[in-house]
Amino acid sequence: MTQHDRSPKHAVSPLAPKRFRRLPPLAGAAFAVGEAGIRYRSRTDLMLAVFAPGTKVAGVFTKSKTASAPVDWCKACLEVGKGAARALVVNSGNANAFTGRTGWEGAEAVALGAAEAVGCGPEEVFLASTGVIGEPLPAEKITRLIGRLAKATSPRRWREAVEAIMTTDTYPKLATAKAKIGGKTVVINGMCKGSGMIAPDMATMLAFVATDAKLPARVLRDLLADGAGPSFNSITVDSDTSTSDTLLLFATGQAGNPPVRSAADRHLKHFRKKLNAVLLDLALQVVRDGEGAGKLIRIDVAGAENDAAAKRVALAVANSPLVKTAIAGNDANWGRVVMAVGKSGEMADRDRLRIRFGRELVADRGERAPRYDEAKATKAVSGLEVEIAVDLRLGRGKARVWTCDLTHGYVDINGSYRS
Amino acid sequence: MTQHDRSPKHAVSPLAPKRFRRLPPLAGAAFAVGEAGIRYRSRTDLMLAVFAPGTKVAGVFTKSKTASAPVDWCKACLEVGKGAARALVVNSGNANAFTGRTGWEGAEAVALGAAEAVGCGPEEVFLASTGVIGEPLPAEKITRLIGRLAKATSPRRWREAVEAIMTTDTYPKLATAKAKIGGKTVVINGMCKGSGMIAPDMATMLAFVATDAKLPARVLRDLLADGAGPSFNSITVDSDTSTSDTLLLFATGQAGNPPVRSAADRHLKHFRKKLNAVLLDLALQVVRDGEGAGKLIRIDVAGAENDAAAKRVALAVANSPLVKTAIAGNDANWGRVVMAVGKSGEMADRDRLRIRFGRELVADRGERAPRYDEAKATKAVSGLEVEIAVDLRLGRGKARVWTCDLTHGYVDINGSYRS
Repeated sequence: MTQHDRSPKHAVSPLAPKRFRRLPPLAGAAFAVGEAGIRYRSRTDLMLAVFAPGTKVAGVFTKSKTASAPVDWCKACLEVGKGAARALVVNSGNANAFTGRTGWEGAEAVALGAAEAVGCGPEEVFLASTGVIGEPLPAEKITRLIGRLAKATSPRRWREAVEAIMTTDTYPKLATAKAKIGGKTVVINGMCKGSGMIAPDMATMLAFVATDAKLPARVLRDLLADGAGPSFNSITVDSDTSTSDTLLLFATGQAGNPPVRSAADRHLKHFRKKLNAVLLDLALQVVRDGEGAGKLIRIDVAGAENDAAAKRVALAVANSPLVKTAIAGNDANWGRVVMAVGKSGEMADRDRLRIRFGRELVADRGERAPRYDEAKATKAVSGLEVEIAVDLRLGRGKARVWTCDLTHGYVDINGSYRS
Repeated sequence: MTQHDRSPKHAVSPLAPKRFRRLPPLAGAAFAVGEAGIRYRSRTDLMLAVFAPGTKVAGVFTKSKTASAPVDWCKACLEVGKGAARALVVNSGNANAFTGRTGWEGAEAVALGAAEAVGCGPEEVFLASTGVIGEPLPAEKITRLIGRLAKATSPRRWREAVEAIMTTDTYPKLATAKAKIGGKTVVINGMCKGSGMIAPDMATMLAFVATDAKLPARVLRDLLADGAGPSFNSITVDSDTSTSDTLLLFATGQAGNPPVRSAADRHLKHFRKKLNAVLLDLALQVVRDGEGAGKLIRIDVAGAENDAAAKRVALAVANSPLVKTAIAGNDANWGRVVMAVGKSGEMADRDRLRIRFGRELVADRGERAPRYDEAKATKAVSGLEVEIAVDLRLGRGKARVWTCDLTHGYVDINGSYRS
């Protein structure tokens, strides 16, 4: 029995990957997990990652105005520590968000405990917490375990690590890739958690990606800035932005690749491609595990004034409860897509609009497509994966986002989350 | 058995007014209804209102970029006819939205038919349609009935009229008031329909309000501009803006009140108050009938930078699926209110924020309130009406909006609307 099977309430998403990814060890990164008993019983809820000396890090975070204490902590570390990282402590069951001064003190206590156990400065300890908002974090339940965990780390525990930080997730989310930098093969491993409160920018989503490549912090920053846009910042489950969203990219520097000084370096081209693939893979795993999700919905918008406008239109469609419930019911209700385009506020000409469900052209030039076939349109929205394409036919702007349908499962899960 | 009982699928909302309002006749306005068979069987789906010569009108409409043909038609009439109105034709079952040139031609055909039957210009005929988007409107089913309806109007058919335009509504929505203008008593009667696709500005919502007062079109325009903001533009069911939203205010001029030249006229003070009460009453009836609604939720935001910012924060809370599902489950999950404030993008200081559920202070100065009592907080969200108050404690901006909870009923209704 795996960790995620322990929640009998929520069956594994029908959209889960068919088999779990096995991640190879990554030189310079090791993990330990523990049962701190923060909220859950009989399951792990604490993860410690220890990184080799010289590890660099970059991060992107929620834009929420009510961000959690760990988010504030990580931002301060990046500022003070200039991208040096030695440890990462993540707990589930409590988000340490909206916990005031106590929350900050709790974060600090955890970081100091980990710094002592690992032998580094507190500014090299990164933190994340996920779970209920507003409950004081019982920091001592974490600190009293940290010393023991620090002595028990193993590079083989990616799976155990991600299982410890799951909340309403129904399966652990992992991804891996190999890339070449100047002839040297490097590994990219990633884990993430997230299922509800998912919206750009970013998602209730914690993602930790590591590589054994040697890369300076500013290169990591540039790589993340480019990579987060079309991946984690292009997914939405419920339009609700979390207080805790955190995406960290660590580089342990153990691979022995030639030095890279800029993200634009041509030696990084392959790495960048593979990194972006890992980020997208993880992001899509989050949508596939969207609370109550029965279908993965991809929305492509083309012909907008510009890319930003296209993305706003795509998100208006992706966040429309009426579109999402229709898809849940296998209803090819393209009129609701028209509605969502109309409400986006972006420039749109009703009489140019073209909409496809899968390959089926359903609407064209302001009305139902002449060869519209209800049976084919219904079939196009009846599978596990649905593609909606909107062409505004006004300009060259385009965007692609992903969401899931809105089902009874979502109402079930979120009407009783805390109980 | 009343009209709205004919949909066995959807029981009458638990939030419906305890008894239906009886509207007094209003001099200069008469109604007839018919069964055109546009989509529904064995129920009325067509309503004709005929107004006395000299009737003036003003309107506000959806801001959707994909507005329906009847919305385009009404806007053109207001432009061409300078606020003169003699008839209103409304059908249910088909929204005549995203129907291209055919849609416009259908609207024109209906208006011409009504103009001939009533004896007026087509620019004095106002139109609205509600129902499925994207299906061509079978205009001839309407036009062939119009002549008969025009001969059968009665000032006593407000209830029948509103029943003919219901779609997923579970009860007919009516409101009435009396007001004094310069010592003369005038009547204000209103009807509306709307249940889903409800969001400012405005709602999938058709509302028709009439008074027997004599008021110029520009005064009606100013009154509506003021009155729509705190009523119809302050409600949201699902954040989805309709292609068809229409609010029309007719003044038949039969009451014999002294002339009024400006909306600021002191003789209008009482009338304005009563009109706003009718608009708010109708708007709240829409939320109370929100698809699947089990609770009416009022959200007050105070202490924002300004009123517009307060409204955006209030709507972020009102449109959050996580807040709405929590309330549905009697879960006093105030952390989700924090999240929604954070995602609004408006200025907020986590460490000043204060949140109440009903009278219960649940969060204060960036953390859980010291005297927080889970049982009392739960009780505050367990009734049919829930009040959430957020004080940002930054400025003087405030706003009040209403929404409903997000339930299994919403998913049921919208996963099978067209079937």
